Amino acid sequence: MEVTIVGAGLVGCLLACFLARRGHEVTLYERRPDPRRAGAGGGRSINLAISERGVDALRRLGLDREVLGAAIPMPGRMMHALDGELTFQPYSADRGHAINSIGRAELNRILLDAATAMPGVKVLFEHRLTGLDERTGRLEFGSGATARARVVIGADGAHSAVRARLQALPGVDFRQEYLDYGYKELTIPPRDGAYAMEPGALHIWPRGRAMMIALPNPDRSFTCTLFWPHDDLAALDTPQRIRARFAAEYPDAFELMPGLVEHYQANPVGHLVTMRCSPWHVTTGEVTAGLIGDAAHAIVPFYGQGANCGFEDCVELDRCLDETGDDFAAALELFERRKADTDVIARLALDNFVEMRDKVGSRLFLAGKRLEHALERALPGRYASRYELVSFSTTPYSEVERRVTRQRRWAAATGLAAALLAAGLTRTARRR
Amino acid sequence: MEVTIVGAGLVGCLLACFLARRGHEVTLYERRPDPRRAGAGGGRSINLAISERGVDALRRLGLDREVLGAAIPMPGRMMHALDGELTFQPYSADRGHAINSIGRAELNRILLDAATAMPGVKVLFEHRLTGLDERTGRLEFGSGATARARVVIGADGAHSAVRARLQALPGVDFRQEYLDYGYKELTIPPRDGAYAMEPGALHIWPRGRAMMIALPNPDRSFTCTLFWPHDDLAALDTPQRIRARFAAEYPDAFELMPGLVEHYQANPVGHLVTMRCSPWHVTTGEVTAGLIGDAAHAIVPFYGQGANCGFEDCVELDRCLDETGDDFAAALELFERRKADTDVIARLALDNFVEMRDKVGSRLFLAGKRLEHALERALPGRYASRYELVSFSTTPYSEVERRVTRQRRWAAATGLAAALLAAGLTRTARRR
Repeated sequence: MEVTIVGAGLVGCLLACFLARRGHEVTLYERRPDPRRAGAGGGRSINLAISERGVDALRRLGLDREVLGAAIPMPGRMMHALDGELTFQPYSADRGHAINSIGRAELNRILLDAATAMPGVKVLFEHRLTGLDERTGRLEFGSGATARARVVIGADGAHSAVRARLQALPGVDFRQEYLDYGYKELTIPPRDGAYAMEPGALHIWPRGRAMMIALPNPDRSFTCTLFWPHDDLAALDTPQRIRARFAAEYPDAFELMPGLVEHYQANPVGHLVTMRCSPWHVTTGEVTAGLIGDAAHAIVPFYGQGANCGFEDCVELDRCLDETGDDFAAALELFERRKADTDVIARLALDNFVEMRDKVGSRLFLAGKRLEHALERALPGRYASRYELVSFSTTPYSEVERRVTRQRRWAAATGLAAALLAAGLTRTARRR
Repeated sequence: MEVTIVGAGLVGCLLACFLARRGHEVTLYERRPDPRRAGAGGGRSINLAISERGVDALRRLGLDREVLGAAIPMPGRMMHALDGELTFQPYSADRGHAINSIGRAELNRILLDAATAMPGVKVLFEHRLTGLDERTGRLEFGSGATARARVVIGADGAHSAVRARLQALPGVDFRQEYLDYGYKELTIPPRDGAYAMEPGALHIWPRGRAMMIALPNPDRSFTCTLFWPHDDLAALDTPQRIRARFAAEYPDAFELMPGLVEHYQANPVGHLVTMRCSPWHVTTGEVTAGLIGDAAHAIVPFYGQGANCGFEDCVELDRCLDETGDDFAAALELFERRKADTDVIARLALDNFVEMRDKVGSRLFLAGKRLEHALERALPGRYASRYELVSFSTTPYSEVERRVTRQRRWAAATGLAAALLAAGLTRTARRR
């Protein structure tokens, strides 16, 4: 069957691999030039943290080794207090569990190579979708080119052109909600050829209303991202103001950022949006148009699940095609059940922003995390924290929430929590 | 000042009148042909019920008499039970209060005449907006025409082209939610030259999950509107099925609808959507683009407030221009506070669908209404029902909700409600 995918980003490329493996002829249309060619422009460069859902999807295609080889494992968070004190907080009771830092561009190149190496996959760059007729399957591109398809899948991100067409149809619900926060990327370069901070951690500077994070890169630099209220970002309009704020609020990082002012002034402000759409597909006669990944459910980055969720979408759609004998209209209908899961992670991602920028610095929060890990160790396979289930399992997101609710009720009922809290605190104290 | 309004529907025309009265030069662009010319096509024909908010806006321009002269007052609801029993339910304790049935096309013609009669107002028909650059104020139309404006106000309805541009800007939140219900218009023609039913009422056939309503027209016909689940509307695909369902569920109306099958098959299914947008305006340098009426806050029709709310928008924007000395950027910024009110009426309109299609038929609901009217008579100026405040006052919608909450708390606390319920029921019983 011939399938058209709009968008050759992370999810579009991975989906092409899954579909080609099923024997379909896949054409990918991408509005940008080929990122593997020299001089190709950026797009979003924010670092990603690939965790179990993403790794599981890659593993099914034999791509996990190559991706993890280009990534840096981060088994925990390193909190930077205002006075420079560092606190390492493991993500899991299992020391082998880590999330994996990788640049979006590098990951996209690996997936593009993988897709183009599959039989039957064709990628057309510099093809920006400008028109889609969901009744005839006619596609129009900015270049003037046209095409026709019976199956069109929009993997074209938060500002999806495919979704723009679906949204205009009666009966398609849609919602976009921006945070009052923007993000801006900065850099901590290597120091004397080495990492300037511990590379095995996701660094966080929680500052109440605002925060900065930093993820390690293979070249021994760190990509830092500020998540600040838009007004705060705009207020730093002189080198003096930029330096003064960083010296006051991020003093340890400030020392490590020689290019701070230059990068702050040159780099654009990104926006943080949650988008919800329902349904994700429309079938009209012979033609089916559907959405996947950010095009269907863009989320904010604070749980590190955007790409992981999009990759899991591909696994789930592959499963729906199994169940329906590769009938795309029926498979995309089945795939709609996944909305229960993507709605959950959208909410958790928003909630986690408050946790990251504010709560992670508090003693109570840290004690709670230690309690959770103590419970996990005491009750292996029976108790698992929300973070554990989201990041280190492939339990559906909605089932994660049901399980977390059950566990809390049970822990409260047995009073076990209090006992283990005491034990956990004691043990931690002993270890110090 | 030169102001561009996109959309010469009800709200666009009324706004043009308000702005022209302030001395502004107004250009209205309308995608449809002039509806006052013979043979002009329809657009939405659903009847409107103009109540106090709409009348108040018209009165400020001296248009109330002409509009009310073309309308038919409906002081209450007439419920049609399955067995043909009729129950009249006044909308207000004040017998002088009525909502006013008028056809959308007729009202639009009156307002177009009023707008074009104002000095400085120009209306350009068959100009469909296809492009808007909010930075330069450049407008593009389907015909190839272009224009430039420093103030652009989108009064172009639920599927606003102006809003489509604003929505694409970062930071603009948006939401569209469809009901699973569609609507379809039908007709009850005059009988022997007279109204076939009581003309002084909004007729309702509440049928649980579905309903039909009918509003009187000056030509002695009634415009009926079915509000049915989409599946139900689609299921009646033969003349036999249409007739059988109406004979079974709307037997008294069925007798009055000789053209039922023909109209059912010919008339399209309309959609019911709620749209929310925030902010409603964007100012970039010298250019300000904003939204008003359905373009800013499309609501479902079940409180009869869509047009009334849009007309009140014009009064409110006029007030904001007073407060800001006709600085449109500042006035549209002030006008954003109205969102608190339009959010309330959007919710009330959704809630009222359940009331109309289901609850109005119940004895408990009717007893509650009688209690409310008894309270209104016993405590004039101190107690007023939500319906009274929404339809027969210009109290801001959000203040209506605060007042209703206060009244309920107070009524419960004093126990006055129970006493008056008894009194009200006794009095009603005596009157029969």
